[in-house]
Amino acid sequence: MFYFTIDILGTIAFAISGVLVAMDKKLDLFGVFIIAFVTAVGGGTLRDMLIGSTPVGWMQNSTYVFVITGTVAFAILFRNYLKYFRKSLFLFDTIGIGLYTMVGIEKGLGVGLNPLVCIALGTMTASFGGVIRDILCNEIPVIFRKEIYATACIFGGVSYFLLRKLPIENTYAYIAAIIIVIVIRILAVLFKIALPNIYRSKA
Amino acid sequence: MFYFTIDILGTIAFAISGVLVAMDKKLDLFGVFIIAFVTAVGGGTLRDMLIGSTPVGWMQNSTYVFVITGTVAFAILFRNYLKYFRKSLFLFDTIGIGLYTMVGIEKGLGVGLNPLVCIALGTMTASFGGVIRDILCNEIPVIFRKEIYATACIFGGVSYFLLRKLPIENTYAYIAAIIIVIVIRILAVLFKIALPNIYRSKA
Amino acid sequence: MFYFTIDILGTIAFAISGVLVAMDKKLDLFGVFIIAFVTAVGGGTLRDMLIGSTPVGWMQNSTYVFVITGTVAFAILFRNYLKYFRKSLFLFDTIGIGLYTMVGIEKGLGVGLNPLVCIALGTMTASFGGVIRDILCNEIPVIFRKEIYATACIFGGVSYFLLRKLPIENTYAYIAAIIIVIVIRILAVLFKIALPNIYRSKA
Repeated sequence: MFYFTIDILGTIAFAISGVLVAMDKKLDLFGVFIIAFVTAVGGGTLRDMLIGSTPVGWMQNSTYVFVITGTVAFAILFRNYLKYFRKSLFLFDTIGIGLYTMVGIEKGLGVGLNPLVCIALGTMTASFGGVIRDILCNEIPVIFRKEIYATACIFGGVSYFLLRKLPIENTYAYIAAIIIVIVIRILAVLFKIALPNIYRSKA
Repeated sequence: MFYFTIDILGTIAFAISGVLVAMDKKLDLFGVFIIAFVTAVGGGTLRDMLIGSTPVGWMQNSTYVFVITGTVAFAILFRNYLKYFRKSLFLFDTIGIGLYTMVGIEKGLGVGLNPLVCIALGTMTASFGGVIRDILCNEIPVIFRKEIYATACIFGGVSYFLLRKLPIENTYAYIAAIIIVIVIRILAVLFKIALPNIYRSKA
Repeated sequence: MFYFTIDILGTIAFAISGVLVAMDKKLDLFGVFIIAFVTAVGGGTLRDMLIGSTPVGWMQNSTYVFVITGTVAFAILFRNYLKYFRKSLFLFDTIGIGLYTMVGIEKGLGVGLNPLVCIALGTMTASFGGVIRDILCNEIPVIFRKEIYATACIFGGVSYFLLRKLPIENTYAYIAAIIIVIVIRILAVLFKIALPNIYRSKA
């Protein structure tokens, strides 16, 4: 139940980010819906296709279709008021990313993949919805230019595999890893921490 | 046999739309062929990958490769005369869309998916070849900007599930749904019906 | 062992081509890594998803992740010296393409696909990493505009199926086909052979 609530809140936050990008590109109603949908479920869909877990996740029940449809309707109708929810949306988004990272990792373990590949799967689950959104909107994915949270996912994933070696219950390691993702991302945003610049500065 | 004829005519119409977009972008012979191919089979390929029906459809026999190769050769050689076939191509395309919507829905039912997801699969089968074509040609998919036929697919799909509740044979519901897709699309084009504009007009 | 060495050298050459395109687009460290990764494994990944061979190839062991990570680090640190390796990289790349074409064809035969579709799979294995790289970098794939090696893959693939009809061991046909791909590509580059132009010249 707790898990389900986070999942839905994360889906809503991801879908709204899709609506905002799509409306910025002046897409029509169908386009906005598809971009919102893809942003919300794209990462998990790619993960499921790569590991052969088909029919992919969102097809298994219609909850996602309903939640995303409702979110799109809400976001279009109240688009001028979305700014008041900015902080809540950031929070939902960040918690969602923490959860999705771990969902991806668990799925990878479930099909017997090694830790390194599992962490890649977790990061992909959390971040590739946005990548597909940006490609469909004809932009270079923002996460490749100004990295926002992939590093937090990777750190969280690594922590999970380290914590699992301790004599603690797996659930605690799982929850701790989610919190690590969330904390790193919030700190990165607060203190504007970014990846090291690989280009020589012009100065 | 009837089904097969429609399938081939639809494939030809889709492939030609790919050739036209690719030549507009001045792609070379290989590029034109790949875009034509992807436009023709992309929707069904994505569908098959999402539901795990692999090797995907067009790999099962070489008819599609031959038909698309022939179409590309024809379309390049006679490109100055394609305008005379515009109406026939629109008709093939529209009938193809109706058929592909139902093929997608049936495939979804075959793996036990719920109606809502089946309708999504049907719409995707009919329309995502064009989406992949536009992405490969570095354009925002036209179907997201100026919706052309996805709504017709959705209406047809909904009708099918409603018709199935009536005491009629499934084949009739199937054919009726195809006709509904075709009629809605033709009416939409004739009367320039579009989705409601979600952007405030500047007037 | 021999096969493995070529595979790794090809992976390095593909990853470096990804780094170069990504740095040209001023992507950040994460973006450069993802583009390098996708360029190196994208073709085989798409092939595996299409034929349902999941979890896809690079997930089966972590060698690829390590090799590509090392390559990216090396290529970024020594980017000003990469030009001195240009000929080696071209050679690795070309040998890689020959090998990947045959790997794709063998995978297709393994799931019972017909020769034509197998050749398509081989060409895709060798060339679609670069297609995904270019799409992620918001460019029309270079291979669709100025065809570089797909034709060599197709010729090599056709030769393989012809050679298999001769009373020779399969391994010889396999190696001969790889060499044919390599030779055609080198000749095409040396003599600037290109596909016939399908656009009327302006002269």
